[in-house]
Amino acid sequence: MNDTMRAVAARKSVRAFEKKDIPADIKRALLEAAFQAPTAGNQMLYTILDIADQPLKEALAKSCDDQPFIADAPLVLVFLADCRRWLDSYRAAGLPARSPGPGDALLAITDAVIAAQNMVAAAESFGLGSCYIGDILENCEHVRQLLSLPDEAIPAAMLVIGYPTAQQAARQKPARIDGRYIVFENRYTLLTPAQHKEMYLDREARNGHPDADFVERLTAFWKRKYESDFSREMNRSACQYLKAFEWSE
Amino acid sequence: MNDTMRAVAARKSVRAFEKKDIPADIKRALLEAAFQAPTAGNQMLYTILDIADQPLKEALAKSCDDQPFIADAPLVLVFLADCRRWLDSYRAAGLPARSPGPGDALLAITDAVIAAQNMVAAAESFGLGSCYIGDILENCEHVRQLLSLPDEAIPAAMLVIGYPTAQQAARQKPARIDGRYIVFENRYTLLTPAQHKEMYLDREARNGHPDADFVERLTAFWKRKYESDFSREMNRSACQYLKAFEWSE
Repeated sequence: MNDTMRAVAARKSVRAFEKKDIPADIKRALLEAAFQAPTAGNQMLYTILDIADQPLKEALAKSCDDQPFIADAPLVLVFLADCRRWLDSYRAAGLPARSPGPGDALLAITDAVIAAQNMVAAAESFGLGSCYIGDILENCEHVRQLLSLPDEAIPAAMLVIGYPTAQQAARQKPARIDGRYIVFENRYTLLTPAQHKEMYLDREARNGHPDADFVERLTAFWKRKYESDFSREMNRSACQYLKAFEWSE
Repeated sequence: MNDTMRAVAARKSVRAFEKKDIPADIKRALLEAAFQAPTAGNQMLYTILDIADQPLKEALAKSCDDQPFIADAPLVLVFLADCRRWLDSYRAAGLPARSPGPGDALLAITDAVIAAQNMVAAAESFGLGSCYIGDILENCEHVRQLLSLPDEAIPAAMLVIGYPTAQQAARQKPARIDGRYIVFENRYTLLTPAQHKEMYLDREARNGHPDADFVERLTAFWKRKYESDFSREMNRSACQYLKAFEWSE
């Protein structure tokens, strides 16, 4: 095992931070890690918003399913999948560029997330904790207004970064689903109901719940996540973002 | 600068590989790096297809804008944003789970790409080269058939991995767009046409083209990328994938 693998294995989400700023040279290094990430055609199809304004942090914390810890993070960054910058570049060169479509949007989302994950790795290497905030996808109209987003930009990822509290640093990283349910050769393979149960209970056992009841726990999780208000809002909101990328041909 | 930052700065795409297999323990470590990546609600909303079959590699190389080097890579992996596995788990528990929507799809794409980028970092740490193949998004109907994809899965990323040839290892990493055009405080900022020109020419100068003509070079790039057949096909195909995630509420 090398240093990279050790860092990858150790990294877990951090949701409580020391009241301690991130030094300017480390912040620059984090951004540089994002810039150095792989990017389609060397285009960097993303824009990073550095949320420095405290009231804006608080508005985003509210908009992201009301999670106050977001506003307490020293560094809050929104990674926008940005199909506007190149469009404007083409137009600045006098080219009759078409409107971006859903493929452009997905490619830009990929670019943005790759950059974000490079920053997460860099943060870990400096002893910083980080957490993705998936809820940034919610409340399209409100977030667009808060961040002055053009229609051609989608918030693909949000990261909060800071020095972990002792309690967070000591927290156990949750065990993952076993790889045999994740990796398949050549073709997609549907699992049987028995395998679904086995997959779930195996993970629960490794997370300290050897006597978990499949139906009871999955029902609670389903209600809390998939059937939740925030999940329905995320779907509605994503639908709004994607409307700007409609395609007819 | 620490080891992680050095690796991040050094990593560049590799498109030609030595004829040398990846040892089984390193392949396991690469997959483990993916599994250990951050994932929304510890769900691992992705499936990884390990393309081991040579005719299938060749069919994918063809489908991905006809890039034969894909079929020559010792390791070819497709990262599917997978909204089917949890759906089937819920149903195995007897729950009346709704169909996944566009928010679920984007969250799963994010999960898949985060995992893929952790693998890219791990590959670099073992001296392996990697390349993302964005073209996996093209030819929806054909790729679905080749990989037996359910409608609830989208190929979010494809990675080819192997030992770089000497020529590839020596290749200069292309300079990125300067961060001042990528990072903004608090709100999205539109650039002026003059700034677009400046941004482009600055990058070109750092890539060894100090005398580049903005309109000429951008026109060539626009034709090769944004106006290309593969780009239009990617948009058409992405539209097809997203149709399975329609939302009405």
